[in-house]
Parts: sequence; structure tokens; C-alpha cells
Amino acid sequence: MKKRLFTPGPTPVPENVMLRMAAPIIHHRNPEFMEILTRVHEDLKYLFRTTQPVVVLSCSGTGGMEATISSLFKKGDKVITVNAGKFGERWGELVRIFTGNCVEEKVAWGSAIQPERLAELLKEHPDAKGVCLTHSETSTGTAADIQTLSALIREHSDALVVVDGITAVGAHEFHFDDWGVDICITGSQKGLMMPPGLALIAVSERAQDIIKGQSMTQYYLSLKHALKAHAGDDTPFTPAVSLVIGLDEALQMIKAEGIENIWKRHESLANACREGCNALGMKLFSNSPSFAVTPVWLPEGVKWSAFNKALKNSNGITVAAGQDDYKDKIFRISHLGFYDELDMLTVIGGIERALKEINFPFEIGAGVSAVQKAFLGN
Amino acid sequence: MKKRLFTPGPTPVPENVMLRMAAPIIHHRNPEFMEILTRVHEDLKYLFRTTQPVVVLSCSGTGGMEATISSLFKKGDKVITVNAGKFGERWGELVRIFTGNCVEEKVAWGSAIQPERLAELLKEHPDAKGVCLTHSETSTGTAADIQTLSALIREHSDALVVVDGITAVGAHEFHFDDWGVDICITGSQKGLMMPPGLALIAVSERAQDIIKGQSMTQYYLSLKHALKAHAGDDTPFTPAVSLVIGLDEALQMIKAEGIENIWKRHESLANACREGCNALGMKLFSNSPSFAVTPVWLPEGVKWSAFNKALKNSNGITVAAGQDDYKDKIFRISHLGFYDELDMLTVIGGIERALKEINFPFEIGAGVSAVQKAFLGN
Repeated sequence: MKKRLFTPGPTPVPENVMLRMAAPIIHHRNPEFMEILTRVHEDLKYLFRTTQPVVVLSCSGTGGMEATISSLFKKGDKVITVNAGKFGERWGELVRIFTGNCVEEKVAWGSAIQPERLAELLKEHPDAKGVCLTHSETSTGTAADIQTLSALIREHSDALVVVDGITAVGAHEFHFDDWGVDICITGSQKGLMMPPGLALIAVSERAQDIIKGQSMTQYYLSLKHALKAHAGDDTPFTPAVSLVIGLDEALQMIKAEGIENIWKRHESLANACREGCNALGMKLFSNSPSFAVTPVWLPEGVKWSAFNKALKNSNGITVAAGQDDYKDKIFRISHLGFYDELDMLTVIGGIERALKEINFPFEIGAGVSAVQKAFLGN
Repeated sequence: MKKRLFTPGPTPVPENVMLRMAAPIIHHRNPEFMEILTRVHEDLKYLFRTTQPVVVLSCSGTGGMEATISSLFKKGDKVITVNAGKFGERWGELVRIFTGNCVEEKVAWGSAIQPERLAELLKEHPDAKGVCLTHSETSTGTAADIQTLSALIREHSDALVVVDGITAVGAHEFHFDDWGVDICITGSQKGLMMPPGLALIAVSERAQDIIKGQSMTQYYLSLKHALKAHAGDDTPFTPAVSLVIGLDEALQMIKAEGIENIWKRHESLANACREGCNALGMKLFSNSPSFAVTPVWLPEGVKWSAFNKALKNSNGITVAAGQDDYKDKIFRISHLGFYDELDMLTVIGGIERALKEINFPFEIGAGVSAVQKAFLGN
């Protein structure tokens, strides 16, 4: 059976990227690799819309979050974190470990923090050294308005603007420089269409200055080390060579398509996916939907285990389950990275087939024709 | 031109491992991947000769060293480190960052620490919480006698025995359980014949108990998190999926060959390599040679840049340069991982060709016939 992955990381890896990584390995001090890394550094600036360095760490996105918190802040520094889901919660866990002074703002799952509330927090905590946000919260499929939030922080505070862009970069419009963001992180297995294993981190001038002045508290996950090596288009430690080479291939694809077109494609795929779900009578979970992943309430009477089994075993389709309190209550369809319009037809078509198999009543074809209409008009 | 890599990490990756990693990506919560990870966990025990957990971290070997120091020790803990080269030096750097109390023993490059000296150190520092050793020091191609050193530590002290086995595991005989080692680390791009990106860490019961009792100072690089996930054959964060799948393939090859046979192969390749160098009138650098990498003094009058250019550009062969004080003075030939007897003939043959190109006088064929004799007898 053909297998099709609709999960928000890992996301499908294009064949040319896989084949490029399958070429015989080269040494990381070899000029051929240095040339690739130099090009990757340059192309990552294009992706993040920045003239500042974007460093490559060989670790997952969480490793990138840890490197950020431990490199940027010191014991006692007050940091505001927004917890609107599993990954916003992670900011808080990291801040508590590394500074011990976390102001955590909880937001209901499926909603994003509102600018007015952030303004209040900034007023209450004028001594905050940083604000940690999540652009696209993967656990809830919810997008925050980073442009507005960042502007607000820059206007009212000296706090650094720290953005988890792990499932947003490449899916949502984002301008690192123009929006005044200080740190933005993504992971290779997301919008970059790669296997997991790399974290990519853009660092503003202001953040670089602070990092330079910090005493070293980490070694492998140190942005200080990473920035120093980056200045010579190098990495401080042996990088995941094959992944960096695959990233080079993926970035060429991104440049060829054009970042604005990629943002538009994700918005359009997300919209069609929502239309398809609506047409099948399934309720959407988020009131501020991400363009990377669409979370959907399981219809009343539909059990996750039976639905997932029908999707996976009979149709070869993998979607993501709900997390934490929403396990068995929602499921999540990803359209982040290497997806096109026909893929949305496939996933909604597969959902129809699974719903039929478990005898859920709906009008067969309603979902897929809503998808077609979303793309092609009535 | 055919390219041949003789560097001690990355080491050559077998085609079947590369092709396995090029298969369509799967999700890390997928039962298919969980099955692979469970098998990898089991097979790593075979590799390390242990019944204890061997955790998989998605980072380089240095990340594994950092996770070890930060998870095992707390601020103020006295730790003895042996610095007999670049990687032993790294133990000291990490201990200074994380505990601030490092007793660093410097040993001349090319030599290994002697048991008598370690016994003195243990006597002088009965309060040491750990001793950090390097089994095969890559920068100097020198092996330490871990069996004897570990026994000595266990006999005279409660200090934990921490071993950097990064270029030793799979090359040198090693018995984690029988030798009483508490931590041993290796990296994927070494004896495991994989691209870089994974650190593998065996953890003794005694070390597990200590780690469980520590308050968390790290998050991504936390052995506490890693051990907890390992108990359920899981990883705490998204692992480098394709690398774990490649590792599964590599471990099948290791099991098929048999670990004792692999140790013997490395010893035999290292011996033939040394014989070949001797026959060309080149002096060996180490007085306690590693079976993973052979460092050789550049003959008088031979410049590294010219020699390396002839090796690489005319013969497609990459060896490793000397590091730090020995840059331009020595070079290093790796035979760690996916190498056979004919490969030793190739590298010594290539060195002969390069020496001829730069007009260094030697008896043509002396090196390669010494290699043949080493394997086949006179």
C-alpha cells in the first residue's frame, strides 16, 4: 500500500533531497562541504528574511530552544513566556531551568495571545528581559500575530523578542528583520522538507551583543560558539553532514519556488483543508488557524482508535493525534512543507474513506468537492 | 576521480546504510519506527557489551559529552579529567563550565596516562566524584588502557568512571559491564559507519541512580529525560529519524560480522597501516597506537600542503591533518569503521603516489608490499 504522511514533523522529504543525502559522505572540513555550508548560511537568510546570521545546530528544535534560553539569559533574568499549547509550555519549562524567573501566561488551547493582554503583561513586568512566543503552536494548530506582538514589545520594552517558528517558518509570512524579532528558531523536519536533526536559529544584532557578553553556561548548545564559528562559515562541532547537504538541496527548491509563493501555497492548502473538513460536518478546533496544521474535533461518536486504524491500515494515511488533554478528542492534518493541492484532495478523500469504513454518516464526496472548489472556484 | 575518505569521522557510510536512509521518511511515533528504535536500543547493548540502557541523543559526540557532565555532576563537584589531546582537553572545558572544579591531568600528546599516575591522582583527590578518560584520543591516535584504569578507579575510589569512547567503540575491545565503566559515549560517524548526528551513551546502574537524584540543569541534553524515555523504548524529543533508521542497518551489519571479529579487524588494519608507513621511512607519532587512526610524522622536507594536494587532487584520497601544535607536522590515516584489507593497500598506495609526485625519495612499492605481508605473511 502507498504510504502518505500528513504529520507536522517529520514532514515528507522530496526524493531529490533524499537522494542527495544518500551520496557518499564527505568530510566536514573538506572545501566541498565548506562551500555547501556557506551557501546554506546564505540561503537561510533568504528564508528568514534577514541580513543577520542564521546558525545551524545539529539537534532538534527543542535543542534550539534550549540553546536560545541558555545563551541569551542568565540566572535570575525575568522572562515572559506564552503558553497556549504544548510548545509554548516548553518555553516555560526551559526558562524555569535556566533563569528560575518565569512569568508564564496561560492561554486556552486553540486560541492565540491577544496584543492587549501582552501589553498588560509588559506593563506589569517592565524588568522582563525577554518574551518567548510561538508563531504556529503545533499542538493546537493555532497561529499568533507575531508582527503585531513583536511591534508591541519593541515599542513598550527592552525585552528581547524570542520566537519559536518551528512549524511556522516556510508556512506563514515572516520577516525577521522588518518585524524586529531577536531570535527565531525552526527545525529541519518542518517547512524545510527535511528529516529531523537540525535546528536553524536567526539571531539579531542586539541578541548577538548580549550573547557575546554572557559567560558560557553551555558548550554544545551554545549560540556563542555557534555564532563565532558562523562568522567563518563553519560549525563549532562536527555537524550532521548529510543533513546539511540535504538542507542545501531543500533550500534550492525553496528559492526556486520563491518564499512569497510558498507562504501563499500554505495559506491556500490550509484553507482548502478546512473547507473539506467543514463540508464533512467536522468542527475545527482553532479560532486562529495555523497554515501548517489543521486540528479538527473528532465528530461525536467517532473513536480516534477506530478512525485512525481505518485511515492508516486501509488507506495508508498517517495524521497526527491530539496531545495531552485533547488526545482522543481532536486529530491534526498537516500541510506543512512538501505538499500540493492534490495532496489536500488525497487527505480529505482518505478521511472520507475512513469515515465510511467506521459507518459515520456523511455525504460521500462532499469533502473532496469542497476541496476542489476551494482551489478551482465554483 | 574516485574519492576515498580516510578520516576518523565522518567515516565512509556503506551503500546499504545510505539507501536505507533514503527511503521515504516515517513518523517517530509510528509503530514501524518504534520497532526500529526498540531494536536499535537492544543492538546497542550488544555493541557496548552491556545489559544497561544505551540512550540515543540527536547531537554530535560533544553533545553526548556535555549531556554526561551536566547530568552526572553538580556545581562544585570535583572531577578529574585526563588531557592527552584535543578531546581529553574537551572534558576539562566541560567540567569547568558545569562544576567549576576540575583537576586536569595533562599528558604529552602521543602518550596515554599511566595507571601509576592515575593511582597518585586518586590518592591526592579522594573526594573526586568522577574521572573522565578518553579511550582512543583521535587527535593523537593514542589508546588508553581503559580496562586497567577503570579497575584502578573502582578499587581505590567511589568516583564514576566516565569514558569518551567516541573513536574507540567498534575499534577497540571494550566491555562496559565487565570493566565497571559508568558512562561510555560514542558518535554515529565513527565505528558505527554512519553520518554524524547521533550520540550513543551507555549508563551504568550506579550512574542512573545519581542522575535520577540530580535536579535538572539541562533539558534537551539531559540524560534524565533520555533514560526515562528509553525505559519505554522512546526518545524525549523528535529524534533524527533517518539517522536512527540508518543506525539500525549499520547495527545489523555489526551483528552479522560479530563484535569480536570487528575488534580483530581493526587491530589488524592498524597494524598493516603502521607497517606500510614504517616501510616508507615515515615515523609513527604515538607510543600507544589506537586501532582507529594512525598518526604519522610528515617526513623531513615534506610540506603538508603539497603532500595533501597530491593525495587529494591527484589521487582522490582524504586523510586528516594534524591538530593544534601538530598542524603541518603530522597527518592521520583513519581505518575506523567500514574498511577492509584492500583499503589499507589503497591508502598506502596513494601515499606512495603522492610522495613520488612531490619528489620524496623512497623505494616505490615498499609500503604496499609491507601491507600485503602484514596481512598475508612473508
